[in-house]
Amino acid sequence: MSNKPFILVTNDDGINSPGIEVLYKSMLEIGEVAVVAPDSEKSAAGHAITLSDPLRVMEVPLEGGLVGHAVNGTPADCVKIAVKAVLNRQPDLVISGINLGSNTGINVIYSGTVSAATEGTILGIPSVAISLATYHEPDFRAAGRVAKMMALEVIEHGMPANTILNVNVPNLAPEEIKGIRVTKQGKAFYDEKFDRRIDPRNRTYYWMSGERATTEEEEGSDELMVQQGYISVTPAQYDLTHYQFINTLKSWPVFSNGQAGLKEAE
Amino acid sequence: MSNKPFILVTNDDGINSPGIEVLYKSMLEIGEVAVVAPDSEKSAAGHAITLSDPLRVMEVPLEGGLVGHAVNGTPADCVKIAVKAVLNRQPDLVISGINLGSNTGINVIYSGTVSAATEGTILGIPSVAISLATYHEPDFRAAGRVAKMMALEVIEHGMPANTILNVNVPNLAPEEIKGIRVTKQGKAFYDEKFDRRIDPRNRTYYWMSGERATTEEEEGSDELMVQQGYISVTPAQYDLTHYQFINTLKSWPVFSNGQAGLKEAE
Repeated sequence: MSNKPFILVTNDDGINSPGIEVLYKSMLEIGEVAVVAPDSEKSAAGHAITLSDPLRVMEVPLEGGLVGHAVNGTPADCVKIAVKAVLNRQPDLVISGINLGSNTGINVIYSGTVSAATEGTILGIPSVAISLATYHEPDFRAAGRVAKMMALEVIEHGMPANTILNVNVPNLAPEEIKGIRVTKQGKAFYDEKFDRRIDPRNRTYYWMSGERATTEEEEGSDELMVQQGYISVTPAQYDLTHYQFINTLKSWPVFSNGQAGLKEAE
Repeated sequence: MSNKPFILVTNDDGINSPGIEVLYKSMLEIGEVAVVAPDSEKSAAGHAITLSDPLRVMEVPLEGGLVGHAVNGTPADCVKIAVKAVLNRQPDLVISGINLGSNTGINVIYSGTVSAATEGTILGIPSVAISLATYHEPDFRAAGRVAKMMALEVIEHGMPANTILNVNVPNLAPEEIKGIRVTKQGKAFYDEKFDRRIDPRNRTYYWMSGERATTEEEEGSDELMVQQGYISVTPAQYDLTHYQFINTLKSWPVFSNGQAGLKEAE
């Protein structure tokens, strides 16, 4: 057994995407690496898991002498099946990416990249998601380096329960990056449109498309920092309770006289 | 135009499930109702949206003289396409359910039922998710009544931005329900197993299955209250930032000397 950390690398763009290759090569510099990732693109998979269909795992030769595992499932499926069926020991770190396209603001809830990291924390493993804020002409160098830096920090310091680091990197050369900042989730979202078309059999169908909405971002938000040339690191957690709203909600009449309403004959 | 509220009903168990019928009949007592829901079961869809495949919308006759719309997509797709392409005006309320099986604790992140309500709030519409805590012999009466009560309250009081009400109902007769309580998200989760099998062509595949883990719940958690016979109402929001961890995170060396590391020649 080596003392090197054991790192599970996954993504949502698929095991053959350029981003995951940058990521596992970066992780090979600091640890033993397993790659378990979707066999095809699963963008916008959210935190879906596959219960109705069988999952298959296929060995795939990768660069650097690695043998990866391609799964016909979602990013969350990949982390679950890696930890519970494919790997012979618990990883010290789950790292997901490098996604093409940022995962900032409200968009994180659609993100397969982030959901894979979330699944890692649910299984008790410190986890990081990393995304590059472009779809075109990606420069992965800064993202590859910051992945290594954040991985080392997370392994050294640990993370609170059910908390991931969501890292977003501007598409700049490393020397153009202004710094690395802790941020909060901002308001970024996509404004979807449905493009209505008629198929050759005369049936209607729709394509969902969307463009990034212009949002008024508060100081220190993920989206704003990336736009300004900083690497954004947001700690994200999965207790969704809106604590500040609880007292207002308790004042609604249904919580004092609701039981009577339930029992009413209808 | 009527002054009745306009209510969009959806779910993740599919447009032909018994739970959605209870729900839209309950909503017909208080408003005009549109039903736009998946054409088949989409449990555990998380917040997935469909970008790579065309979406189709099919009219489906429903009880009570309604014409529903069945969509070959996820619950989040249904709410997006309803609001942006199917309906001719913005609903006053989105209500999702009645799901078979509770959505408590960390499980909410896998829930299609909850994601449909979340999508409603992202589109600026007050939204409620409602689930019945059983898979067998459901008694929908209390859930149907509390759906109506909560809908009326939400329409009257409004909701904070990006916040849903996640309602979980014990599977009890209405007169056995102990009350309605505001709760916080607890720790409930499923402990998954992978059942490894060999198919007729001699290839390995896996079924994911899981059982509800035994969790130590704090007082006032969603899971605990439902177990004790109360209807649980959790306000859930989508700013995932772990604010309490921000200062600790900022103390990590990478945030003071990270920029140098980025620029290092490798």
